[in-house]
Amino acid sequence: MLERGRTLATPVLRAAVERLAPPMDTVAAYHFGWIDAEGRPAHGDSGKAVRPALALLSAEAAGRAPEVGIPGAVAVELVHNFSLLHDDLMDGDEQRRHRDTVWKVYGPEQAILVGDALFALANEILLELGTVEAGRATRRLTTATRKLIDGQAQDISYEHRERVTVEECLEMEGNKTGALLACAVSIGAVLGGADDRTADILEAYGYHLGLAFQAVDDLLGIWGDPEATGKQTWSDLRQRKKSLPVVAALAAGGEASERLAEILAADAKLSDAQLADFDEEEFASRAALIEEAGGREWTSQEARRQHATAIEALDRVDMPAEVRAQLVALADFVVVRKR
Amino acid sequence: MLERGRTLATPVLRAAVERLAPPMDTVAAYHFGWIDAEGRPAHGDSGKAVRPALALLSAEAAGRAPEVGIPGAVAVELVHNFSLLHDDLMDGDEQRRHRDTVWKVYGPEQAILVGDALFALANEILLELGTVEAGRATRRLTTATRKLIDGQAQDISYEHRERVTVEECLEMEGNKTGALLACAVSIGAVLGGADDRTADILEAYGYHLGLAFQAVDDLLGIWGDPEATGKQTWSDLRQRKKSLPVVAALAAGGEASERLAEILAADAKLSDAQLADFDEEEFASRAALIEEAGGREWTSQEARRQHATAIEALDRVDMPAEVRAQLVALADFVVVRKR
Repeated sequence: MLERGRTLATPVLRAAVERLAPPMDTVAAYHFGWIDAEGRPAHGDSGKAVRPALALLSAEAAGRAPEVGIPGAVAVELVHNFSLLHDDLMDGDEQRRHRDTVWKVYGPEQAILVGDALFALANEILLELGTVEAGRATRRLTTATRKLIDGQAQDISYEHRERVTVEECLEMEGNKTGALLACAVSIGAVLGGADDRTADILEAYGYHLGLAFQAVDDLLGIWGDPEATGKQTWSDLRQRKKSLPVVAALAAGGEASERLAEILAADAKLSDAQLADFDEEEFASRAALIEEAGGREWTSQEARRQHATAIEALDRVDMPAEVRAQLVALADFVVVRKR
Repeated sequence: MLERGRTLATPVLRAAVERLAPPMDTVAAYHFGWIDAEGRPAHGDSGKAVRPALALLSAEAAGRAPEVGIPGAVAVELVHNFSLLHDDLMDGDEQRRHRDTVWKVYGPEQAILVGDALFALANEILLELGTVEAGRATRRLTTATRKLIDGQAQDISYEHRERVTVEECLEMEGNKTGALLACAVSIGAVLGGADDRTADILEAYGYHLGLAFQAVDDLLGIWGDPEATGKQTWSDLRQRKKSLPVVAALAAGGEASERLAEILAADAKLSDAQLADFDEEEFASRAALIEEAGGREWTSQEARRQHATAIEALDRVDMPAEVRAQLVALADFVVVRKR
């Protein structure tokens, strides 16, 4: 199912990226893993392709051919990658998908420019369809993009705050991850002529799927295997991310929770450079405290709760049984994945 | 006319910006000059407002009330300011409209994020109208935005190249300035139901107006009065901009042209920091060579040529005489302005 999304969407995505003026076409091709930093063809990891898969299933959920969802799949993937390019720069992330990030290879200017270009291209791909449905799809995509940006703004501001509530964290993650997955799973249906009620229910599935996805991401951000995730060990702790395991551990109370709060308060007084100088054990002991305070277990349960809520939404809309089964399978994949 | 654009569009623009999640709403309000860096209400310079004025005249050119153009005026202004936020960061510009730029006050992250948010908001403002015309207007705005980004990519790459032809420079400036002015002057008409032919002719006026505007900007970027422009003295020379006066001087041949080429080739070997250490006289002597080689005069003539081409386009579309007179007056203003 993920493979189908990739196979159908990638040629259209590549053709879209080729419209960019040089050197942005090259920079984007590197980001997507199609070429290496020397410009040679590559078959790099271009991501899990969950969003394109959802967009094609979305068209099928509305009783249409999966191909109807292709422009939606491409547009959502372009917006997703626009946000990765900008977020990696803002967060100072040097690695993505086991390779140096764009700002690291081509400089911050290209990361900004190519991100902007992918965002514009996403709207262009949809609007050049010239249909009423395309206008509706673009409106939903725009709303999702605004939420994505709101979520990144919240994420950044939370890194500098001592306390973030679990509710604030969930709101941020809903914006940052839920909104675009919601759009992915409604956009194919909207392009296929589905009404707003159907699109809204599909979005509810996608939103909760996104929260499940993000809860798992937060677990991988602390306890993930760097070989599998392509990120540094303890990457979220290195970046002071107030992710779900952290905020849940801080909210839990008790000895480990209080000890964690003291350590993070002391960390807050350190510069990023000082934090970067910590050795592995320092981060390992923080992770152990988060786990002891129950942050790891709570986040696992939260992933399962969001997974269940996502599945429940599917019962409120008529769709072919095969499509429903695939949406369930995709939700199952999201909570068990290791990368 | 400029005042009317500002008066009608600003309340809608402010309401749009208030939708942004904190702290982006504050950062955007600072950028537009509505508050100062301490958050106190201000009445800063929020730009010349040429684009909103054009969008309202555009609606009138199609025989509609100026108010029909307001969402277009706001959307174009949002895209323009998205590009300013990102360009100032990429170019390292520390001052705009006599105040510190956003990246300087709030940091690069906020400049990236708020730029992204304004871009998304522009599409949102148009698409929530929910009409077929809004879809067409958004498509034109998206095309213009892509050109704007292409132009910035060209501008950046030209700074690192020894030779740029006059044609390349005009293409870059057409993308960077012409495309969005073209969109401003068609968007109100499109929202008012004008056909594509009318919109295309209005865009031709706007495109050449943009090239005239940019030629004047290039003159001001070298010989402008810092008090009036709000920029540093010789600001384009400090940034190695291959602007029209420079490329025209290099293309002219002759003694001053060759001497200039030698100096710029030597400059190219210096770091940005070394160039920043130059004193005023160093830049003044470069400016004098550009003028001696004819780059200043050629650019002045080019502004007049583009102005004439813009006015000619207006003859190909039926519009109220009063609207035509205002479009002519606006073109006249663009070429004589000092800031």
